[in-house]
Amino acid sequence: MAMEERVDTNKGQMKIGFIGLGIMGSRMAANLQQAGYELIIYNRTAAKAEELVKKGARLAKSPLEVSQKSEVIITMMENPQAVEAVANGENGFLNLSGANRLWIDCSTVNPSFVNMMAKKALTKGFRFLDAPVAGSKAPAASGDLVFLVGGDERDLKEVQPLFDIMGKKTIRVGEHGKGASMKIVVNMMMAQAMVAFSEGTSLGKSMGISEQALMDVVLNIPVSAPFLSAIRPRMENRDFTPNFPLKLIRKDLQMVSETAYENGVSMPSANLAKDIYTRAMSDGLGDQDFSSLFGYLNK
Amino acid sequence: MAMEERVDTNKGQMKIGFIGLGIMGSRMAANLQQAGYELIIYNRTAAKAEELVKKGARLAKSPLEVSQKSEVIITMMENPQAVEAVANGENGFLNLSGANRLWIDCSTVNPSFVNMMAKKALTKGFRFLDAPVAGSKAPAASGDLVFLVGGDERDLKEVQPLFDIMGKKTIRVGEHGKGASMKIVVNMMMAQAMVAFSEGTSLGKSMGISEQALMDVVLNIPVSAPFLSAIRPRMENRDFTPNFPLKLIRKDLQMVSETAYENGVSMPSANLAKDIYTRAMSDGLGDQDFSSLFGYLNK
Amino acid sequence: MAMEERVDTNKGQMKIGFIGLGIMGSRMAANLQQAGYELIIYNRTAAKAEELVKKGARLAKSPLEVSQKSEVIITMMENPQAVEAVANGENGFLNLSGANRLWIDCSTVNPSFVNMMAKKALTKGFRFLDAPVAGSKAPAASGDLVFLVGGDERDLKEVQPLFDIMGKKTIRVGEHGKGASMKIVVNMMMAQAMVAFSEGTSLGKSMGISEQALMDVVLNIPVSAPFLSAIRPRMENRDFTPNFPLKLIRKDLQMVSETAYENGVSMPSANLAKDIYTRAMSDGLGDQDFSSLFGYLNK
Amino acid sequence: MAMEERVDTNKGQMKIGFIGLGIMGSRMAANLQQAGYELIIYNRTAAKAEELVKKGARLAKSPLEVSQKSEVIITMMENPQAVEAVANGENGFLNLSGANRLWIDCSTVNPSFVNMMAKKALTKGFRFLDAPVAGSKAPAASGDLVFLVGGDERDLKEVQPLFDIMGKKTIRVGEHGKGASMKIVVNMMMAQAMVAFSEGTSLGKSMGISEQALMDVVLNIPVSAPFLSAIRPRMENRDFTPNFPLKLIRKDLQMVSETAYENGVSMPSANLAKDIYTRAMSDGLGDQDFSSLFGYLNK
Repeated sequence: MAMEERVDTNKGQMKIGFIGLGIMGSRMAANLQQAGYELIIYNRTAAKAEELVKKGARLAKSPLEVSQKSEVIITMMENPQAVEAVANGENGFLNLSGANRLWIDCSTVNPSFVNMMAKKALTKGFRFLDAPVAGSKAPAASGDLVFLVGGDERDLKEVQPLFDIMGKKTIRVGEHGKGASMKIVVNMMMAQAMVAFSEGTSLGKSMGISEQALMDVVLNIPVSAPFLSAIRPRMENRDFTPNFPLKLIRKDLQMVSETAYENGVSMPSANLAKDIYTRAMSDGLGDQDFSSLFGYLNK
Repeated sequence: MAMEERVDTNKGQMKIGFIGLGIMGSRMAANLQQAGYELIIYNRTAAKAEELVKKGARLAKSPLEVSQKSEVIITMMENPQAVEAVANGENGFLNLSGANRLWIDCSTVNPSFVNMMAKKALTKGFRFLDAPVAGSKAPAASGDLVFLVGGDERDLKEVQPLFDIMGKKTIRVGEHGKGASMKIVVNMMMAQAMVAFSEGTSLGKSMGISEQALMDVVLNIPVSAPFLSAIRPRMENRDFTPNFPLKLIRKDLQMVSETAYENGVSMPSANLAKDIYTRAMSDGLGDQDFSSLFGYLNK
Repeated sequence: MAMEERVDTNKGQMKIGFIGLGIMGSRMAANLQQAGYELIIYNRTAAKAEELVKKGARLAKSPLEVSQKSEVIITMMENPQAVEAVANGENGFLNLSGANRLWIDCSTVNPSFVNMMAKKALTKGFRFLDAPVAGSKAPAASGDLVFLVGGDERDLKEVQPLFDIMGKKTIRVGEHGKGASMKIVVNMMMAQAMVAFSEGTSLGKSMGISEQALMDVVLNIPVSAPFLSAIRPRMENRDFTPNFPLKLIRKDLQMVSETAYENGVSMPSANLAKDIYTRAMSDGLGDQDFSSLFGYLNK
Repeated sequence: MAMEERVDTNKGQMKIGFIGLGIMGSRMAANLQQAGYELIIYNRTAAKAEELVKKGARLAKSPLEVSQKSEVIITMMENPQAVEAVANGENGFLNLSGANRLWIDCSTVNPSFVNMMAKKALTKGFRFLDAPVAGSKAPAASGDLVFLVGGDERDLKEVQPLFDIMGKKTIRVGEHGKGASMKIVVNMMMAQAMVAFSEGTSLGKSMGISEQALMDVVLNIPVSAPFLSAIRPRMENRDFTPNFPLKLIRKDLQMVSETAYENGVSMPSANLAKDIYTRAMSDGLGDQDFSSLFGYLNK
């Protein structure tokens, strides 16, 4: 591919399409806008686009309009069904031929789905990067996300300036699908660390140790994942406003479960974690932060 | 208790008894010796005492001889049965009345056992601290252990110089038994982090990501317990020389299981981890480092 | 629907299509043939059709030919993908309009898939029954299967004579999909009973009880699922010739897992069983009978 | 041992000691009384002895008085601590030397404890049989228990008439401890069958199948343990009056867990079951029948 075919990330000239304006997407898009990029945005619930529109973003009537009017399309959807809908559904943005657009999917979706999407994109003349993120609401807002990218190295290089605005680090894991693959491993680790910590504190408290003493020790010894320290104040205050909703980590664990099944890998501990979050969800915690599991097991 | 009854940790005058010279104990004792303390040592297998004897330690013929000739007795045993034997068995060191010795038990044993020992010690006129350690062979050798202490604050203050030689940090968790309680929480966290990491990498590899890429990403994102980074080289080289033998972490998980049973706490994930280590042990890994689980699940 | 539109199960006049001639299907088809029905059969591997062809069955060149030439089409496939392929793939049997055929799917597939197939069938003018079976090779051969049927009561009544030949009992569970739903519950129970029995005997043997004594007692007290007694001789002889291959019970447990996820049900024990079978499969037992788990855990 | 030293089970002349008059013990003792045996009974809570005393039993003031005045002592206690207390505690019945009593322990306690008790009994000149029972309140009342016996064959023969009154079947599993060993295997199977059934019905109901249809099918196919059919009416009526309290099956699963630990056996499914019952207990079901788990998971 000749360089002149590549998109130009020079801010003055480049238009970025952004689809999916939830907790994460709205903040990522705002950072791009803030940095001077012109945005064409789409969201199923148009109300969520208001803030960006006020500051100059153009609201598209359909995903297709987004790809018609932008060189790079970024999607940040909740699940494979939603990605499928905006990409391949009626007026999906892939219904545009010969345009050499670059689609960056930042959604956390399962690797086999990503591989399928990558194929469809290439067939339609789109280039593709899977670029799920490590990090939740706060780093999305401050531009401190970590991107785990799968796809062509040159494609990544081309849009690196965008990743640099939205995040603090971009790691190319490998070819198409490898970003998504790495992402579910990362989220599985996070999910399990929360389970272990929640069980551990419940045991500790049953032995008469205070919650504060437990946190003082356990979170300051290298046996605990550092993200737990970061959210300690919220756990202590039982403030479970969603940064990363519990139902979404459960979704990720289901992807882990399906991928493990497809690949013949035995993962009893990850699967058990899924069932623990499922129980919490059936008790009404699905829309709270996933750290509400801590509160759930430490009443 | 009047101050004059307290032991004097002034190096020139104080004698320290040390019982249990395994992987950990031998290194802890060596640090005390190195710092100038006079040691009276005992080990079931006398051969393990040779190095210390060469450098001036006195080898006792029985645990009782240790308490007869020292003001502070430190024990570092593998399990409650072994603690029981040296303390209360024939010629056990508690068979000495009215001596106002201070016994520091650094073994990782279950809290209900510790409480029982504390009572026996007090009955015999001994003072008692439970002081299990966080850290394995390397920090034991370099004097970088963390002590989790249960017991009287003044008793701790008195022997703080000894803890400062053997470790880098001493945390008083609470009364008798609370050090042991905190310790099993810590080890449970460590055990589970290893299980999650080992399952996660096996999943990642099944999706075609290299072990190196997995470690590069997962260990550098705050979802992983930092101790995993510290032992990364050994895991990569499949060097499972025991720092913390797998059979001992399994033992600790059994304590967790028993304590959870006694206290009516449901800990499915911790109990599952126990069974995963048990399987590894029945496949011959009991005497290897507990990180051999990584190799076991990532063949 | 007027009665005259209904198929006539009078043997002399009715043609039955049968697709899928594996362990189960070949035996079920043979029973229909033996009872006097004219068969039109299809199998991806034509060699498996030989025996039936010798005795008068007609071998179709495609699934479509089967529905063109028969009033009732029975399918017995290994998984949803295989059902999808013969029904909707190129030359799939549903590509026939206005014919009022009755399709009976005896495959064990997940309920949400069945509901989708039922809809597609109805759209194409086919009637539909999901009719998975309880029972494996032996009852398939002797005509002693139990059918768990979902669908219209009149449709079931119409083909009851066929079920009566292939099985000893037909239970209408409810509307479309309910046969499939009940089936995965039944197989989950079977899978778990085998896990419990295998763990129980391994514990018993570790305590010095002989395998024979364990079976004598445990299998003759009402705590054991009766199917275990039926396969006792094969377990004792470690004869794991597949009646119900381990990889298929693992597949069923994955359906349970997916359905539980979709419906928000926490099923830790069933999910753990899946991982136990997965491990056995990764150790090479996938094509052996699922009872090889007993041998696997009782070496 | 010469025959003349053996006890005489001839009703007119033999006195039976019975200690432990809970749900099971009170019914077993009543059957012996009903059959004409003279009873000397002891229970920590004397009130529970009233019914038997009214009908002629003699209430002892201590366990020791029981062994002083009877040839055979039967114990039916809730846990090892309780057995230990009546046997070896102050005024324990083993504090009687040279009397050649025969002690039958019907409690469900862990095998390593039984072996220890057997040794103590022999040392004190008592003979010993471990004889835990399969069956709960109803068969205890009707004399339909199954006894799983460990110990000397001749000792068993001697008291066979007593077992024949209290039960319908006596199985000698092997030497001392083997009855207890078999018992925990049996109870583990029962515990797991209840978990599988409860999860299975919750899945089935989430798919829209009625509880009745599920029971009609699942309980009448050989994948279900027959005891489930026996208690079906009570499960349907959510009548969880304790025949076998949930806290006791949890206790048995803890014995399984400890024995598996001691013997190096991996039993993830049994251990998970323990945690499921623990959760039910911490939600208040400990004193209800263990089948209340069904109600707990099928709200």
